[in-house]
Amino acid sequence: MIKQLTIFGVGLIGGSLALALKKAGYCQQVVGCSRSAEHLQKAVDLGVIDRYTLDPVEAVKGADMILVAVPMGAMQTVFASIAHHVEEGAVITDAGSAKGSVVAAAKAAFGEIPTHFVPAHPIAGREKSSVEAALDDLYVDHKVILTPLEQTDPDAILRVRDMWQTAGAEVESLEVEQHDAVLAATSHLPHILAFSFVNTLADSAQKDKIFHYVGGGFKDFSRIASSDPVMWRDICLENKQALLTVLNDYQQNLADLAELITHDEGDALLEAFARAKTERDRHIE
Amino acid sequence: MIKQLTIFGVGLIGGSLALALKKAGYCQQVVGCSRSAEHLQKAVDLGVIDRYTLDPVEAVKGADMILVAVPMGAMQTVFASIAHHVEEGAVITDAGSAKGSVVAAAKAAFGEIPTHFVPAHPIAGREKSSVEAALDDLYVDHKVILTPLEQTDPDAILRVRDMWQTAGAEVESLEVEQHDAVLAATSHLPHILAFSFVNTLADSAQKDKIFHYVGGGFKDFSRIASSDPVMWRDICLENKQALLTVLNDYQQNLADLAELITHDEGDALLEAFARAKTERDRHIE
Repeated sequence: MIKQLTIFGVGLIGGSLALALKKAGYCQQVVGCSRSAEHLQKAVDLGVIDRYTLDPVEAVKGADMILVAVPMGAMQTVFASIAHHVEEGAVITDAGSAKGSVVAAAKAAFGEIPTHFVPAHPIAGREKSSVEAALDDLYVDHKVILTPLEQTDPDAILRVRDMWQTAGAEVESLEVEQHDAVLAATSHLPHILAFSFVNTLADSAQKDKIFHYVGGGFKDFSRIASSDPVMWRDICLENKQALLTVLNDYQQNLADLAELITHDEGDALLEAFARAKTERDRHIE
Repeated sequence: MIKQLTIFGVGLIGGSLALALKKAGYCQQVVGCSRSAEHLQKAVDLGVIDRYTLDPVEAVKGADMILVAVPMGAMQTVFASIAHHVEEGAVITDAGSAKGSVVAAAKAAFGEIPTHFVPAHPIAGREKSSVEAALDDLYVDHKVILTPLEQTDPDAILRVRDMWQTAGAEVESLEVEQHDAVLAATSHLPHILAFSFVNTLADSAQKDKIFHYVGGGFKDFSRIASSDPVMWRDICLENKQALLTVLNDYQQNLADLAELITHDEGDALLEAFARAKTERDRHIE
């Protein structure tokens, strides 16, 4: 149970958690804080939060659970603004898509990483990222990955776990570096590939004809290229090393395929495609 | 109206056309021909074709419309087997995903490209490519691209156009080279990218963790990697030049993005991602 949940950045992610916890009767009060009174008022009007303040110090007063769900580039600023004002016993968690950089931001802002800070990443989203898109069932059957550190307080971990489970999520744990490598491969890489794919077509001299003839394959394959550009810029910069590593692997794999096509290596192409189909079918169906 | 439609290769593509034309009462008889009596008998049992033969010469007897819907690597063999047996006034068309190689196959098999041959490409498909997956509405609101040549008989073009329109398709025309460039960009390239993506993840030391954490983005993005490997090997080899051209453009675009990430060029990354989102939203929504 939470007495007061304070959410920094009340968008899709924070808003959906608030709705889920309210529906479950798990949280007495939700306080929002960001830099936009207009957005926060909308969140109040939608019943997502109970009240709001633009002052971070005011926002964490009375809070026993603090969720920092701002864009990753703003994490450190928010941490620094509350560093000396979080009440005894309060737990801090976040919702960043990369964990190494959030942990570094926390260390920079707090001096050392607080034992009551539990880095977390809910793996859920929609193409729209505003509070109007918030859903009380966004997290049902979705995974939330916690990346606690050695010094993290076990009780703080349990409280964050319990909160996300109440929202319907499956909560699992990974080490920070593991999380960042796994997410670089499963999520960050395909976004880069989709952005690049759409831009390659848009650069073509045949652009108009190309977009006239796009079919169902294009639609599915490019869907994630409609994601929020600001969020994805931040993710690229915040998970840079892990992303560049898997991107380099991908470039090598693609270059190998191009070689096979160039040299009419039909058997090897068939083997590569059959392997991809087998792996995909095994893990998705 | 068609008296006898003969289909070489009765799978998803040919089978769906047969079902649509039968439903519309547009075709009196459908004859199937391939190398597998078992598959053809299944097509009879499913009501997709009326009768079948394993003999190409027998198959085209009495046919006023001939659809060659075999894998592209087998086109030339089928053309050669019927070259001297097609009846006066019959129209030949195909369903190959690349047109330059089909036109070349026709020229090789017939000596010169027949005036009654209308190269065509129905842009429709499902993950399953067997006759059991055939649907009478597969082509409704899908495009069929004809790539007639200068010498192609206008009446033959009209008859192929009418047939596909009866099946519910929107019929358009492109030059052979334009078709191949457009399809390389919109369809063949994303398939290669998806195959390569799945294989890159499967090659990772973190493979098990990676596939455990795949989310909705992965599922959509990788869907086309579950396509038929044989068909895609053939497409790569048959549309090699156009595919390698756009694949090279893509590799360059991706390398540029990797550079921007490496050098923390946030503004340029944002610009690239925003452009992709704008283009995608404009052409899809």
